[in-house]
Amino acid sequence: MKKIAVILSGCGVCDGSEIHEAVLTLLHLSKNNAAYQCAAIDGEQTRVYNHKANAETGEKRNMLVESARIARGNIIDVTKIDPKDYDAVIFPGGQGAALNLCSFAREHENMNVRKEIETLILKFHEAKKPVGAICIAPVAVAKALSKFKVNVTIGNDAGVATCIRHWGAEHTNCKADEICYDPKNLVVTTPAYMLGKNIAEIEPGIEKLVKKICSL
Amino acid sequence: MKKIAVILSGCGVCDGSEIHEAVLTLLHLSKNNAAYQCAAIDGEQTRVYNHKANAETGEKRNMLVESARIARGNIIDVTKIDPKDYDAVIFPGGQGAALNLCSFAREHENMNVRKEIETLILKFHEAKKPVGAICIAPVAVAKALSKFKVNVTIGNDAGVATCIRHWGAEHTNCKADEICYDPKNLVVTTPAYMLGKNIAEIEPGIEKLVKKICSL
Repeated sequence: MKKIAVILSGCGVCDGSEIHEAVLTLLHLSKNNAAYQCAAIDGEQTRVYNHKANAETGEKRNMLVESARIARGNIIDVTKIDPKDYDAVIFPGGQGAALNLCSFAREHENMNVRKEIETLILKFHEAKKPVGAICIAPVAVAKALSKFKVNVTIGNDAGVATCIRHWGAEHTNCKADEICYDPKNLVVTTPAYMLGKNIAEIEPGIEKLVKKICSL
Repeated sequence: MKKIAVILSGCGVCDGSEIHEAVLTLLHLSKNNAAYQCAAIDGEQTRVYNHKANAETGEKRNMLVESARIARGNIIDVTKIDPKDYDAVIFPGGQGAALNLCSFAREHENMNVRKEIETLILKFHEAKKPVGAICIAPVAVAKALSKFKVNVTIGNDAGVATCIRHWGAEHTNCKADEICYDPKNLVVTTPAYMLGKNIAEIEPGIEKLVKKICSL
């Protein structure tokens, strides 16, 4: 049975992991008979957002604690993820991926990937184990693996694609139900809510991404 | 196109809506070409739970604001749901259903359904529009519709079934992938995480429940 690490970044599209993308990732891992282990950074979220009022709240919340909601409590500190214990790693999207895993949402082409996440991506890459990323999360993978000219998709947003190319990585336009597979780097990405207009539209891409990851 | 109201109770299995059950409900509504409107009570959760540490935190959080995370911001106050605008209503499970929508988790057979939820269930029932409930949420429906001898399932928990019968309602044991359909009252229920051991095991029952609701 394959064992896949799923890296969450909070619980909610505006300040953490996009919940539908995270749950569909877990659903299709489970349907592919893969075991999964959720993990998150044990640290404060960049912000806490009121998803009803569409405004920051000023509260403090911990990424690991909030991500545990999606994981139903079964979650560990991301620094405890050793690639030798896993067959692959997947990063669901949401603003949390661009706020908490890297600084893309605020610093765009000048952004940095958070150290523990960059280390994790480089370790899986070095071990020749697949890395999957959904929605906006591919920016963190593109930056971390830019020297390997990794090829990813975040849909067809020209501004984001320009940043990705600025780092030395490659970008391929894809539709919501497609995946971008880089066979050299074993990286699989899909646009999800970067393009999908509802949950039924994002499922096929995530289903394909998980199947590809599990087949490698 | 059918339009279905989905009533959430927060965001997380231990203090709100069970996230996997809620997302799978939205997924299958979307796959059945039904529109949905999420709604929640605009009021404080009964408790806030740290899903990693497995302990109450003492924080205060609002059900509508937290439920908005699952709904990606598109959510309204439950008192704004008028059955004439909808074809059916569905209640996903989670401890929030038993803590926030009714007092089952703390008062068992002596529990009450929260007034705005009881009113909503009675109005959909009176309008002969289907009511769906998942996991532990059927207890609220059973109590609200007990005088109509509604038949529901919460899986096979003998203690919960005894409470349901104590109110005058009926209980039918079901497996995780089955639904209980009461044709007299147009109520559809499925055990989900009352019995399912992983997300792949709870999907078939939720898929069947949504298909049944959309076919009525």
